[in-house]
Amino acid sequence: VTVAELGERELVARIRRRLDAEALAAPTLVIGNGDDAAVVASKRNRQIVLTVDAQVEGVHFERRFSTLEDIGARAVAVNVSDLAAMGATPRWLLLSLVLPASCFVDEVERLVGGVASEARVYGASVVGGNVTSSPGPTIVDITAVGDVRPRRALPRGGGRPGDLLYVSGTVGGAAAGLEMLQAGDRREPISACVARYRRPIARVRLGRAMSDAKAARAAMDLSDGLADAAAQLSEASGCGLELEAGSIPIDAEARDWWNGRQRDPLEAALAGGDDYELLFAVPRNSGGRLRHVAQRVATPGLTRIGRLTKDRGAWLLRGDGRRDPLPRGYEHFREGEGD
Amino acid sequence: VTVAELGERELVARIRRRLDAEALAAPTLVIGNGDDAAVVASKRNRQIVLTVDAQVEGVHFERRFSTLEDIGARAVAVNVSDLAAMGATPRWLLLSLVLPASCFVDEVERLVGGVASEARVYGASVVGGNVTSSPGPTIVDITAVGDVRPRRALPRGGGRPGDLLYVSGTVGGAAAGLEMLQAGDRREPISACVARYRRPIARVRLGRAMSDAKAARAAMDLSDGLADAAAQLSEASGCGLELEAGSIPIDAEARDWWNGRQRDPLEAALAGGDDYELLFAVPRNSGGRLRHVAQRVATPGLTRIGRLTKDRGAWLLRGDGRRDPLPRGYEHFREGEGD
Repeated sequence: VTVAELGERELVARIRRRLDAEALAAPTLVIGNGDDAAVVASKRNRQIVLTVDAQVEGVHFERRFSTLEDIGARAVAVNVSDLAAMGATPRWLLLSLVLPASCFVDEVERLVGGVASEARVYGASVVGGNVTSSPGPTIVDITAVGDVRPRRALPRGGGRPGDLLYVSGTVGGAAAGLEMLQAGDRREPISACVARYRRPIARVRLGRAMSDAKAARAAMDLSDGLADAAAQLSEASGCGLELEAGSIPIDAEARDWWNGRQRDPLEAALAGGDDYELLFAVPRNSGGRLRHVAQRVATPGLTRIGRLTKDRGAWLLRGDGRRDPLPRGYEHFREGEGD
Repeated sequence: VTVAELGERELVARIRRRLDAEALAAPTLVIGNGDDAAVVASKRNRQIVLTVDAQVEGVHFERRFSTLEDIGARAVAVNVSDLAAMGATPRWLLLSLVLPASCFVDEVERLVGGVASEARVYGASVVGGNVTSSPGPTIVDITAVGDVRPRRALPRGGGRPGDLLYVSGTVGGAAAGLEMLQAGDRREPISACVARYRRPIARVRLGRAMSDAKAARAAMDLSDGLADAAAQLSEASGCGLELEAGSIPIDAEARDWWNGRQRDPLEAALAGGDDYELLFAVPRNSGGRLRHVAQRVATPGLTRIGRLTKDRGAWLLRGDGRRDPLPRGYEHFREGEGD
């Protein structure tokens, strides 16, 4: 059955049943799905954090590389990652679906199932949305709403010269995973890099712990790669930056993949997007606070990779003392692919 | 210059400048455009109201019928109308743009200008958003966030048998205006119906006044037409309904338009969408409260058009005593056009 055959009302009713069945019952939800708008009760003394991100078929995802559940889950994770980068707690999601009329209803239900189960992972609830037909590709546009204690949000531009740069987890895995899929590489058991590309993990607990502990002054997620995030954070902070090439925590499997293809793993890992790790600017005297965070949030771990500088350039420090300009990451419209 | 030639970063910078120049400076905005997410401060003791709606080129709008400023403004108004239907006050907007790479930058700026100026009309601020490329049509997806006093939101399902149904303003104007455009009718000065289709007005002050005065138990906007809204409100309320054919406030110019084409103005006005007036279910003893609202909000006025019934049918009462089943409105995917 296609969505054109089923019609909007019944489609919306099925989506709603799927969300009600899978999503958390939101204790904060006053009026939910199916009304003109959703009404939610925010906690006292919290600021509201708002973000939106659209995933377009053929631009941000391909049906041959990901299941529909993956696509729905990923659309949630990339939005929740933006909240995590602010130190916020995800609370509510709005799901705006743009669908070709030829789309099958069971496909939509699987995609929505991925949205609902991923929302549950982060303790967020899908409280509303919209469905519309389009002559173009399938688009999953999600608005994520969270909250944060006043004056605890982690902006991009909060860094100061001398702050140390820390990145969570490892980098390059998702980009290598996408390359494996594009190359038709079908290793079994499935590569951790591929899993990482398909199902990124938003670092909500880490972002919140850094905010709670006042350990960081600025933060940003790595949606467009580490080089891009570092450059954007430093520019927004009115600083330059130095990254130490030898310190970048490149994913081990990704390193092997690029080494096997005569490519520089460092360059590929710096440019590769989709990791959704977090980058933090941490004042130099924050060692105790960082240890406190590490005790609260054991994974994914934090690695010191460089620092913000007064000088406005963006540099990569090599082990041999050379200093190369830091390459920039992916930009929409201009290049063909990425996020 | 196309967006492909300009690139994402410079495009986003231009959009941001346009929003900063035209939109209200939001006193509630803590961290704004350009960060991972926007941080806003909600008023004390308010519930948050969330809604999203996508406008797709070729489905919800046509470049030959509306200017780009109209398209941007309309995308704001239809979302703000959903907040108005809850009795909420609009506060913040997120603008998610999906653009073909061949789109011209000055076109995007005009569209964003329409978004910004319409946001200002309602006292809302565009605090964030997203831009992405797509091989498909232009899509303007807006998330509107408002607030409302606790227990004052007006749900669809709050009506009770015996409640009187009131509609704001007149109905059918926007549908007739769209037909005039489709028919190539180029009357000068421009038809009020066409203006209404291009630039709907969200009834924010009326919705809020009805909520403040506790004059209504349920409300809904007329995005898909009066017949559809009445049926949905009564179903959500577990009621049936009767509309009095002679009471429906059909737009005078629309009536002339349909009369001139041998079409029944009542049927056309009931089915016609895009008016964005509000429908209210009002308890029978609320006369004093309604008068209070009418004193506070002089336009667009309210007309009593029928009532909710215990019997679950949806009926249209004719002047001659006949009772016809109420026709339903537009449904996405199944039919070719509408909202």
